[in-house]
Formats: sequence, structure tokens, C-alpha cells
Amino acid sequence: MNLAMLTDLYQFSMLYGYHLSGTDRKMANFDVFFRRHPFNGGFAVFAGLADLLAALQNFHFSDSDLEYIKSLGLKDAGFIEKLKNFHFSGDIFSFPEGSICFPGEPLMRFSGPLFEVQLLETLVLNIINFQTLIATKSARIFEASGKSAVVEFGLRRSHGPDGGLSASRAAYIGGCVATSNVLAGQKYGIPVKGTMAHSWIMSFPNELISFREYAKAFPDSSVFLVDTYNTLADGVPNAITVGLEMKKHGHTLKGIRLDSGDLAYLSVEARKMLDEAGLTETKILASNDLDEWIVDALRHEGAKIDIWGIGTKLVTGSPDSALGGVFKLSAIENEDGVIIPKIKVSQNEEKTTNPGLKSVYRVYDTSGMMTGDIICLADEIPTDESFKLAIHPLNEYKFFRVTPEYSIKAMMKKVFSNGVIVDGTEKLSDIRNRVLGELEKLHSSHKRLVNPHYYKVSLSQKLFRLRKSLLEKGLNIQKE
Amino acid sequence: MNLAMLTDLYQFSMLYGYHLSGTDRKMANFDVFFRRHPFNGGFAVFAGLADLLAALQNFHFSDSDLEYIKSLGLKDAGFIEKLKNFHFSGDIFSFPEGSICFPGEPLMRFSGPLFEVQLLETLVLNIINFQTLIATKSARIFEASGKSAVVEFGLRRSHGPDGGLSASRAAYIGGCVATSNVLAGQKYGIPVKGTMAHSWIMSFPNELISFREYAKAFPDSSVFLVDTYNTLADGVPNAITVGLEMKKHGHTLKGIRLDSGDLAYLSVEARKMLDEAGLTETKILASNDLDEWIVDALRHEGAKIDIWGIGTKLVTGSPDSALGGVFKLSAIENEDGVIIPKIKVSQNEEKTTNPGLKSVYRVYDTSGMMTGDIICLADEIPTDESFKLAIHPLNEYKFFRVTPEYSIKAMMKKVFSNGVIVDGTEKLSDIRNRVLGELEKLHSSHKRLVNPHYYKVSLSQKLFRLRKSLLEKGLNIQKE
Repeated sequence: MNLAMLTDLYQFSMLYGYHLSGTDRKMANFDVFFRRHPFNGGFAVFAGLADLLAALQNFHFSDSDLEYIKSLGLKDAGFIEKLKNFHFSGDIFSFPEGSICFPGEPLMRFSGPLFEVQLLETLVLNIINFQTLIATKSARIFEASGKSAVVEFGLRRSHGPDGGLSASRAAYIGGCVATSNVLAGQKYGIPVKGTMAHSWIMSFPNELISFREYAKAFPDSSVFLVDTYNTLADGVPNAITVGLEMKKHGHTLKGIRLDSGDLAYLSVEARKMLDEAGLTETKILASNDLDEWIVDALRHEGAKIDIWGIGTKLVTGSPDSALGGVFKLSAIENEDGVIIPKIKVSQNEEKTTNPGLKSVYRVYDTSGMMTGDIICLADEIPTDESFKLAIHPLNEYKFFRVTPEYSIKAMMKKVFSNGVIVDGTEKLSDIRNRVLGELEKLHSSHKRLVNPHYYKVSLSQKLFRLRKSLLEKGLNIQKE
Repeated sequence: MNLAMLTDLYQFSMLYGYHLSGTDRKMANFDVFFRRHPFNGGFAVFAGLADLLAALQNFHFSDSDLEYIKSLGLKDAGFIEKLKNFHFSGDIFSFPEGSICFPGEPLMRFSGPLFEVQLLETLVLNIINFQTLIATKSARIFEASGKSAVVEFGLRRSHGPDGGLSASRAAYIGGCVATSNVLAGQKYGIPVKGTMAHSWIMSFPNELISFREYAKAFPDSSVFLVDTYNTLADGVPNAITVGLEMKKHGHTLKGIRLDSGDLAYLSVEARKMLDEAGLTETKILASNDLDEWIVDALRHEGAKIDIWGIGTKLVTGSPDSALGGVFKLSAIENEDGVIIPKIKVSQNEEKTTNPGLKSVYRVYDTSGMMTGDIICLADEIPTDESFKLAIHPLNEYKFFRVTPEYSIKAMMKKVFSNGVIVDGTEKLSDIRNRVLGELEKLHSSHKRLVNPHYYKVSLSQKLFRLRKSLLEKGLNIQKE
């Protein structure tokens, strides 16, 4: 699908202005980063890259698109010609999809002519913001569940058709084992799972008959929804009756689903009843507006839940509902053809950007655990002297020493080179495995649901000094 | 676009079971409704109908879809044949799109063979839940702004490509005057607007030059972003300098945009500076994570803001992030071919459903204001005796009398008849006008942001009695 028109008007307006002012071919560099941890947590999971690269490869304007753009008053023939021939010719560096990431880090870096890079902002943020939000939410729920089975069920409450599809993809990346979304299964190869709705049960004369009919259709994969009437008085006993009938014929009742009421109490009681009837292999699935905090609380209360069905709050990233990732200019060619670093100063010091072309390195301690990330200039390498000290971005007296026993990994890879995809289109299961592997290397203090310890993201000495000198110069820039 | 595969696996599983149990041709009736006011408000705006009807008309399974479904274990040849020939042959009744609506009311009613109606649940809820949420949010912001200009700016934070497109559509329906989303403009004819990003300004040697270059490109439609450096010390003075230059050449600086800081203070000061310079026609646009509560607070503080740019919280429906609309069985054919009403009883009395085939009528008082809605059985008409008393669904001693001076309007129209669209595909501007018209007829107490007065949604005497008799019978249903 061609998403070239999925953009904010101001991108076209600025392109038009760059074209008329003759600045459209200036080389520019933009960074993608976010400023705050989603969900008041201690980490995020970077997602959306492969979908974004696919969209960039198919990015072009049709004649009717160009007619529409002209109708908006952007009529200059040279401008329309440039859009007609548009192809992103620059480079993109990116974290691998599924990487654990943190506020302030450049997750992606776009270099190319200003005209081309500026136009990508909206599409990049639209895809990366949402999928990163949902992959993060999913990883949080996965951790809260004790790494047990979490199934994503959210399509009926997601934000339109594609809000559902992207959410299913990102939820799987973040740790879910399956989705209810059939299109996501078909398109992305995600395992699909499902049970039954209340309407199934209500369409038969009674619950017992409805379970029997379902068992006939699915003798080895039935999960009975047991709360249509009274969970413990009707639902579970009827499920046991049919489960024992299935057993007699050599089949297994795979599970029951609790979808209302006190899930801790009901799951404990249902487990007892199932076990007493000899249906020890029948799993208990719970759903009903769950999120990581409720899953955590239920587990600590001793709930006997084997599988968690999570819908609305997972696929909408509730309560955040959006990740505030931005796409910010960090360097641009001046009139002499020199790329000069740019900084956006804010009265809120944390919103001041990091200037220049940058890279990110991740430092692991001797036990293989992540101990801190270092943002540096792209021409630095970890053996450089300036890399030995990693400085807090807002306080030069806070730093850590990068000692030789640490191992250091480069986080940014080139994924687009001269306009061609060269990396980053991985299998979804590989991306998911990266998340699960990196979560193991992240200390539990950063994964805590309440008041997590913040992971260190520092600047190399060289970047810190550049930032400081630009801040000092910047004080006078506008007054001149 | 064909969205037939955008569904939950359990729909296919249930269809498979209905097919095998021979119950798939039973006539069934399902209602769409939601249970709680979004945003703790006092009303909602029904949206998504035209998009849904378009999707239903194009609903079919390709050979590769059927192969995928078979790969999920649903292999019965007769079942696959039924999907291959799938076409929704039933009837749909619906509120007109853009209607004000309330919890508990059936907004849509689907009648047809169980096999066909069941399959539509996910798609219906996916489209209606999201667009209704966003249209409601938009109407709330529109009201909070004093019905001034609100522009939707949310694409970079929306839930994927389509989460953005659907949100732009619903936001426009709910009262926004424009969107920044170019694709939404092209596809739906919504007016598109935009200003400039910080990168525009930073790509030039200084702010003044950047404004001059923009003014050259857009001599009569420039809106300058004034907070890149220091809003009152640099941004507004530079905008005034260029605004006066534009004026000298017979042009007008259309506006300035404030995007950070204290918008109340900055807008008052900027207004003074613009007015003193003689730029009284230059408007002030404000943005920065706004919602209805912030807009309301800023207005009450005397902010001088002419245009509100609203992004993230509008297009994601924050803080709710989802509307919990459901699709519930309300009647089904029994073995004797009789359609019998069904009720889903819940321990939470408010979650107990209303049985049978139903309609909704809206009652207006003599001044034309909405005074209450009545849910009745579909075969009732307002002149019926049972219609004279409208009863609170949970308390038969709370009721209101429908007296002859009230006017009564039928809310449900047939939009799909025997599988063909017969109504409901209106122009977007007509839908938007319906919202704005109905908001005028809704008393302000229901539109209050804090602690709104709840609008009355009552049952006809006949429906109340049916519900009560089924509840009484239901007490014994499962024990038998």
C-alpha cells in the first residue's frame, strides 16, 4: 500500500517553501526519539521498522495525488515535478526492531536532501510511535504475567482496521504468544487463537447443549466460556460434565474462560473443581479489561490463571494511548556546503535536543547485563579517548567510567543506503526473540511496574562538549 | 478494501460450529450498544456508519483467504463453500450517522441468519467503537472551545495509518473545521490545514529569514510558529516584522502559532503586541497536547486564542482510548421457527441486556429540546398505549409520561435491506451538520465537562414487562 499521501499538510507546505527558496537540496539529518518512558515504566521496545521500510520502498505519488496537491494551492510546476520523481535517496540508520530502548536516544537517523527527509516525518512517526507503544505495553504485560501465555484479543476495540492490524503485530513482538486477529495471522504469520462468545451459548436452548455442540466441532481445542449464567453454579459444572464426556471419547477439554467477576476467587475455585473432577489438564484462561497492573495483582493474590487474554488496554496502549516520539533536525548543510550541528533549545531543559549526527552504544557488564547506553557523535568509536567517560546529559558532574571489562555493542545499523533497503526486514519471530532475549539482560529494577529505577543514558564527552558549546552560543543567536 | 479477514478467530470457530450443528440458518438479531458514557461525559456521537456500510458491501473471501482459513483447521468442505458464497443477506437498522446517543440504546440492529450476522461482529465494533469515540471527543472539544475553530493535527501520534485516517474523519464529523491529514482531505474531502515545523525555522540561518522565506511562498496563508527560540522576545517580534512587510505589499499574515509555554499568558501578550503593531487581523493558533479540559480552562482564564490545534488526545480518544461498544444477541429463532427474545443476565444489573427486536424514539419538548429517549419493541409505535409511560430500565417506580405536546422522532432507519445498502451513505458535511444541529438541541447540563446531568433513556412499558418476565424466568433456566 502506498502511503505517500498519509502526511500532514505542513510537510508539503515546507517542501514547497524549500523548493521556492532553493534550499531543498541541502543535506539534512533528522533523529527519531521519544522523551518520556511510556506507562511511567523503565524501558520501551522499539517496533515498526520493517513495516516502515516496506512503506518507504513503495512511496510515490500518482497523477491523481499530484492533482490533489495542486488543488491545495501548491501549483508550481517545478515542485510538482519534484514530487512526481520523488524517491528517498538518502540513508537511514536504526536500532534493530525489537531492541529495548530509552528516552532521549536517537532510535533512527535519517540523512538526505532536506526536501526528501522532511517529507518522511509524518509516516515515520505514525508507524514507529504506535508500534513502539504497543510492543512496550505487550512486554510489560508479558513480564507481569511471569512470562506465561498472553493472547491478544483487542480487535473489536482497536483504532480502526489498521489500528488493529499494527497492534496485533506489535503485541506479538512484545511477547504475546498469539492474537485473535485472523488478518494479522494471515498477513504476518502470527499464531491465531480464539474461544467463543456469549452469543454461541445463548443461541442454544441451554449452556450444556451449547458446550456439547462446540465439543463436537472442536474435540481437542475447545475452550468453554463459563460466565454466561452463573460461573461456579452453572458454567464450570457444565464444562466439567462435557469435559468428562470428551475424556471418555479420548479427547481433552483444552480450557475454560473466565470473563467477569472476581478472577482471583473464581480461578481458584474453578481450578479446584476441575482438578477434583480429574480434568487437571484443562487450562484456565482469564479475560476482562486486564492490563499489567491487574495481571500482577491477580498473580500475587494466588489466582490460578494459565493464559491471559488481553484486549482493549493492550491494543490501545491505555492509559497512555500514544507515544510522543518526535522527528527533529539535528544537522544541516550551510551555505558553504558544510554540515553544521543544530540544537533546539527549550526553556524545559529536558526538551533541549542533542545536536549533530549521532550513534548509540550499549554497555554490558561482565555478567552480560545492560548497564548503560552512550549517545555519541557518529564519527566516534568506543576505543576513542572521549568515550571513556559517559556523562549525564543535564549534569556534567554525573558520569560513569567505561572500563575495559565492559562489552560494548553498536545499536545503530544502516538499514537504507542511497535509497535502497539493506537491512531491517527481519522475520517477526526473530524480532520477537530479540525482545525476549534483551528483556533477560535488563535488570528487574528497570522492569518494576511501580517507581522503576531509570536506566542510564549518557553522552560521550565529545557530544557533551558540542552540546554545551552550542547552548552557550545559542544564548545570543536570536538577539544579534 | 475487503476487510472480511479482519475478524477474531472465534467468529470463524463459532460459524464452523453453527454449520456442523445445523443451526447456521436460524434467524438471529444482534444489537450494537455501549454501556458507559465516554470521557465521563453526558453524551456520545454515533459515527462510522458510512465506512462500515462500504466495508460490508465489499465483504467477501478470496481463494487465498479460504486456504488460510482451512489451514487453521476449519477444513469442512461445506463450511468453506458457505464462506466462498458469503454475502450478508439480512437487514440492518441504524441511528443516522452523527446522531447524539446514549448508553444502553441499540444504535444498530442486525437481523439475518446466525451464520451471517455473527461474522460481522468484529468488523462492526472495530469501525463503530473507534469512530464514535473520536467523534464524541471532537464534539466535546468543539463545545469546550465555544464552538470556535478546532483543527485536528494528530496523524503523527495516531494508531497506525488507518487509525489516523478514521480519526480525521470522525474528528471532522464531531465539529473540527479541518485536518492536517492530506490523505483524509483527498479521500473524504475534509478541508486540510497546516503551518510549519521547528525544522523549517532551524533550516535557515535565523528565525527572521525563515519567516521571510515562508511569506514569499505563502503570501496570504502564512502561520508562523513563534516558539523555536523565545516566544515573546524573538518569535512574536520577528513575526510582526515580517507581518508588517507583508502588509506593505498588500498581503496579510494569517496567524502565529504558540506551541509551548503558558498559552494563556503568551496568547494575551502576543495579542497585545500584534494589535499594537496594527496586525489585528492576524489570528493566534495554539497547540501543545490540548484536550477539552485544557481548552476550557484556558478560555476561562481569558486566553486570546482564535484557533485550536488538537492532536494526540483527540485522535487517540485519551484518556479513554476505547469505547466499549458490544454486539449482543437479543433474539433467535427456536426449533419451531419462532423468533424468541433473549436476555443476557449479569450479576451487575446494569450489564443485563434488553431482549427482543427493538427501536428507539427521541422525545423533544415544545421548545425543541431533547428530553428523553425511549427504547421500545420494534413493533410498537408512539401512538400505542404502552408508549405513554417511559420507565427507567432498572427501577419501575421511576418513569416519565409522554404527553401529546411532545414531538417524537424515530431514531432507527433501515440502512441495509436484504443485503443491499438502502440508506446511510451520506455526505460527510451533512453528517457533520447533523452533529452540530443535534448539539444545539441537547441541554447544556448534559454537555458539562464535570459531573454532567444524565439524559434519560427509558423503556416502553411493553419492553419493560418483557425484560422483567424474562428475568424472572431466567432465575430458573440453568438449574432445570
